[in-house]
Amino acid sequence: MYSFEYCQDLINKELENIDLKGSPFNLYEPIRYILSVGGKRIRPSLTLMGCNLFSDNINDAIKPAIAVEIFHNFTLMHDDIMDKADTRRNHATIHKKWNENIAILSGDAMLIKSYEYLSACQDNIIKKILSLFNKTALKVCEGQQYDMNFESKNDVSIEEYLRMIELKTAVLLATSSKIGALTGQASADDAELLYEFGRYTGIAFQLQDDLLDVYARPEVFGKAVGADIVANKKTYLLVSALNCKDKNIISELISWIEKKEFDKEKKIKKVTEIFNRLGLKDTTKAKISDYMNKGFNSLEKISVSDNRKTNLRELVQRMISRVK
Amino acid sequence: MYSFEYCQDLINKELENIDLKGSPFNLYEPIRYILSVGGKRIRPSLTLMGCNLFSDNINDAIKPAIAVEIFHNFTLMHDDIMDKADTRRNHATIHKKWNENIAILSGDAMLIKSYEYLSACQDNIIKKILSLFNKTALKVCEGQQYDMNFESKNDVSIEEYLRMIELKTAVLLATSSKIGALTGQASADDAELLYEFGRYTGIAFQLQDDLLDVYARPEVFGKAVGADIVANKKTYLLVSALNCKDKNIISELISWIEKKEFDKEKKIKKVTEIFNRLGLKDTTKAKISDYMNKGFNSLEKISVSDNRKTNLRELVQRMISRVK
Repeated sequence: MYSFEYCQDLINKELENIDLKGSPFNLYEPIRYILSVGGKRIRPSLTLMGCNLFSDNINDAIKPAIAVEIFHNFTLMHDDIMDKADTRRNHATIHKKWNENIAILSGDAMLIKSYEYLSACQDNIIKKILSLFNKTALKVCEGQQYDMNFESKNDVSIEEYLRMIELKTAVLLATSSKIGALTGQASADDAELLYEFGRYTGIAFQLQDDLLDVYARPEVFGKAVGADIVANKKTYLLVSALNCKDKNIISELISWIEKKEFDKEKKIKKVTEIFNRLGLKDTTKAKISDYMNKGFNSLEKISVSDNRKTNLRELVQRMISRVK
Repeated sequence: MYSFEYCQDLINKELENIDLKGSPFNLYEPIRYILSVGGKRIRPSLTLMGCNLFSDNINDAIKPAIAVEIFHNFTLMHDDIMDKADTRRNHATIHKKWNENIAILSGDAMLIKSYEYLSACQDNIIKKILSLFNKTALKVCEGQQYDMNFESKNDVSIEEYLRMIELKTAVLLATSSKIGALTGQASADDAELLYEFGRYTGIAFQLQDDLLDVYARPEVFGKAVGADIVANKKTYLLVSALNCKDKNIISELISWIEKKEFDKEKKIKKVTEIFNRLGLKDTTKAKISDYMNKGFNSLEKISVSDNRKTNLRELVQRMISRVK
């Protein structure tokens, strides 16, 4: 069975070999750049490991795996324009390093490239894979649009929030896994169970990210703690707090959200105090456990021997154990 | 045999029936809007007529035809952001009516939608069609990037210009036609000949557009004559003039290009006078004839009876006869 590290390496080598020397330079160079500045390669590794669950030969899964990684990076390139983000993975974003037009067009080219890699899958599953990928890709756009709509909306319900992160984040992890299963010629039932595994754990990862913004130890987090709070980002914690029963807490939160000028540290401290008062660290942790268990239950039901599942189980466990 | 008008109607009816009622509204409504504000439906009609050349049943070509029309409108949506265009077909562009982020994301969703429709083609040709479409879609991005690069470049060669319009405009007309041929189960040779027909006539159409900007009768043109001249748009005429042997003419042109403040009518008049002095109306007309003849020669060679070709021949002839 192939480990996550083995799959990561394989993906990184494949990505280095993608031919992006085409002309014009300023269409293809941003693609090379964004693919070279890192990322954990979780999605394509899920494809390879999903295939490996059912087959010892993962060669047929490599190109579809590259497809999901390119697609993921396309969404980052366009999301960064929309979010006006200056950096990503400690590097300048494309629209900052070049300009917005180049980021739009190179992103478009990446989306096309992802279909190019996807089209290289086996003939007997191509229609299934395309249908799954098309639906998922649209869902990811829907998730991003909801996320933007939520920026100016303080009455987002918890259900709406969970649906948004499912669309924006979880379905791609689910689809990456399921494409692997299909490539490994899994049965329809097993492929669907692996989709559910990816979907549940995907929601858990996003909740985890929300939690880390507030409660991570800065030295292990890699980004500034409290950035979501400063930016009024609708996270599971903020949405939950805005849905609490206490009107005073809600107006305190809204007054922080509406402040144009403020001391960042003070805002982080005050909003965190509200989250603490509402016990949201534990609520969120419980929710994460809940989704993780649902994911593991789906994995459990897949009709292959348990020892084939070890690497996948370890990967998601490791990803979730970053919580303080 | 189905006429262009019949194909246009069929496409318009299909477009009206596309389900775009999904949520969020501001992701799907811009797609409905751009598809509803007109357009001549030339590309999808070429797909249907290309199929009809080889088969009396064009049903299998309808979804791929919709795919190319959605793709074409996706490129317009994103190009309009990049070109900062306020109107298109006498209606506000998406980024003007909504905002840039919505135009980026709805455009992404359209590109995905086009693959959704393309994926509905027959199983025995799906890999061929995807491979052709992927290559073409990338070329269209390359063409748009070259077009943007040319904005700040006064030493574009005629070859570079022709290559740019081939990428930006002609290959999609070629591919729309060839997808029709493949859907009609044409032989590889015949499909390729129809591609060449679309490619040559596509280049001719763009040259024609360049010519009309200067020499159209305003009452039949539908847009303001001279808009390309005012905007310093690199057209076949401007590029040809900048490549003439006369240094005085070149510096006169460059001084017009570099002027920040000018009287529009005067600039149009003066630049048109230069084009007249260089005989560029006739040069361009000859070039258009040349490409049209090459296109017709390719059509001629296709191994179906001549009467099946009448509608396609008439369509491109009608499109080109707009020249004064």
